[in-house]
Amino acid sequence: MKQDPSHAPADTLYLPADELLATACRVFEHMGLSRAHAQAMARTVVAGQRDDCQSHGLYRILSCAQTIAAGKVALRAEPALAPTQGAVVRVDAGYAFSPLAFERGLPALVEATRAQGLGALVIGRCFHFSALWPEIEAITAHGLAALALTPSHAWVAPAGGRRPVFGTNPIAFGWPRPGANPFVFDFATSAIARGDLELHRRAGTPLPEGCGVDGEGRPSTDPLAVAQGAMLAFGGHKGSALAAMVELMAGALIGEWTSQESLAFDAGAGAIPCHGELILAFDPARLGTGDLTAQQRQAEALFAAITDQGARLPSERRYAARARSQERGVAVPRALYEEVLALLG
Amino acid sequence: MKQDPSHAPADTLYLPADELLATACRVFEHMGLSRAHAQAMARTVVAGQRDDCQSHGLYRILSCAQTIAAGKVALRAEPALAPTQGAVVRVDAGYAFSPLAFERGLPALVEATRAQGLGALVIGRCFHFSALWPEIEAITAHGLAALALTPSHAWVAPAGGRRPVFGTNPIAFGWPRPGANPFVFDFATSAIARGDLELHRRAGTPLPEGCGVDGEGRPSTDPLAVAQGAMLAFGGHKGSALAAMVELMAGALIGEWTSQESLAFDAGAGAIPCHGELILAFDPARLGTGDLTAQQRQAEALFAAITDQGARLPSERRYAARARSQERGVAVPRALYEEVLALLG
Repeated sequence: MKQDPSHAPADTLYLPADELLATACRVFEHMGLSRAHAQAMARTVVAGQRDDCQSHGLYRILSCAQTIAAGKVALRAEPALAPTQGAVVRVDAGYAFSPLAFERGLPALVEATRAQGLGALVIGRCFHFSALWPEIEAITAHGLAALALTPSHAWVAPAGGRRPVFGTNPIAFGWPRPGANPFVFDFATSAIARGDLELHRRAGTPLPEGCGVDGEGRPSTDPLAVAQGAMLAFGGHKGSALAAMVELMAGALIGEWTSQESLAFDAGAGAIPCHGELILAFDPARLGTGDLTAQQRQAEALFAAITDQGARLPSERRYAARARSQERGVAVPRALYEEVLALLG
Repeated sequence: MKQDPSHAPADTLYLPADELLATACRVFEHMGLSRAHAQAMARTVVAGQRDDCQSHGLYRILSCAQTIAAGKVALRAEPALAPTQGAVVRVDAGYAFSPLAFERGLPALVEATRAQGLGALVIGRCFHFSALWPEIEAITAHGLAALALTPSHAWVAPAGGRRPVFGTNPIAFGWPRPGANPFVFDFATSAIARGDLELHRRAGTPLPEGCGVDGEGRPSTDPLAVAQGAMLAFGGHKGSALAAMVELMAGALIGEWTSQESLAFDAGAGAIPCHGELILAFDPARLGTGDLTAQQRQAEALFAAITDQGARLPSERRYAARARSQERGVAVPRALYEEVLALLG
């Protein structure tokens, strides 16, 4: 561990990723997780910290600790990978955290997708705390496109309504780029992330317009009123329709909990949501016309048409942070690091 | 053909769907389409008229006539259905209109989806003028969920940009409901439909805020300036990311034209876009946990949570129009009907 050599604030540490991984793994094992779970969890939170996604970085170790304290997570459950059926791979996480279940299902998903042209990885009954982009990147690394969906907890009202039905319901997509970072986006279908709503609530600052309604269904920028009322989807009725699609695809379609059912299971504990996940993968070599190089050229022409006019690709900020982390170590606020280490005490 | 019996405007005709189908089919055959193409086209435009989707109804016959006059459509090409490969069904439309290609691919898509759990129908090189919901409904009728994507012509700038890259790139989704109309949405990822932009341009009325930029990238509500500049995606950077996904999934992934390539092929003719289409289908009986009734209950609970608070499901307006059409005949503006009949002259 070393201090920032240049002009960064003295309360930021710059740590080698390996050291962070070892620390995070030790902390998770200390919480009672099996070694395999702890390693998968550590890879996930360190990837978030490395890419400067603070809310999905080491900070998540603290919310995992709270969730474990709530007593519902199976700490050592081995994910149960069912035999592949057609293009469908199913992993029952057995009420454990999700990253290990994903890792255990990934090879079968890649195999099924290459064999059938497209494939689905269904993860059942997992506590899901991570961003979706680490999973998307794990699939694009195999030269496949990917689409991932999960519900969360019912906090978001449908367009035209005022009572929560949908979760923040993220949608993530990735396209593989040989020799470059993949094209990846990962966003909540809610107008604001739940974590950002919490930050506004704690800070007492108003929300941006259009993020929520109060208990009477009136538009509100008061984070407390919105927390008691409902958040809204991004993009009006279109975002609301997409949020419904996530409930249906990553809930009813796979026989896993919707955001309302997940919230009912939580029963006020305030833990990380437990539900299912649907991850689709697509093989450009099987879905295309047989000229993969031409297909890759098409994609690159699209990206060039975006960046040549000064617009950004979705994950550029993350990749820039990743490059900085590789150069100087992963930036971690000292207070956060101490809070994480304190979990060992 | 009979006049409205009650208080509707005298310039509206109410026609039995069968009569409209026969008329539309005769007109398409008169344009040179094969009987099979004409029937598939007629079914598509009459479904639009029946559901009061005016821009996808009989009106489209006129734009099809213009496209045919531009000389690029193969009027009698028989769609070429390739042998199913894994979960992938491919139909080469051979530069003909899309509805017949979809109809020819549908049985194989349903079969592949039931066999593999999920399936893809790839339609190549089709002139695509229709809404996506008729195709979605044809799949939900088999008890399957469906997701459909197409590019269009490059009219939409990426978030943060000012030059067109994306098409209006619709996304449509459907979920089957036994004994009820399916849950279906179908929307452009552009902030406004291209047809609505044209209507504003002809009427000289301003666009809603946020729909486009002028040639310098400045926000504009002037339809002419936006037509010369660029339309914008709905929902800011999230909608823009989804529009990019449509280009990648229904373009590069399947080796079919992106919206930029489709516009280049058009070469100023102003015809209906020619490109590919990707339609995914999902079998709840194969992707779920084995209790289909429970899965359907989950979906119905979601819908009830939306409608019980007075919010609407996406296609309610269409289904209400369909019910009215079944009761009193399909409403058709007299002037439009006469314009369509004039194509026979």
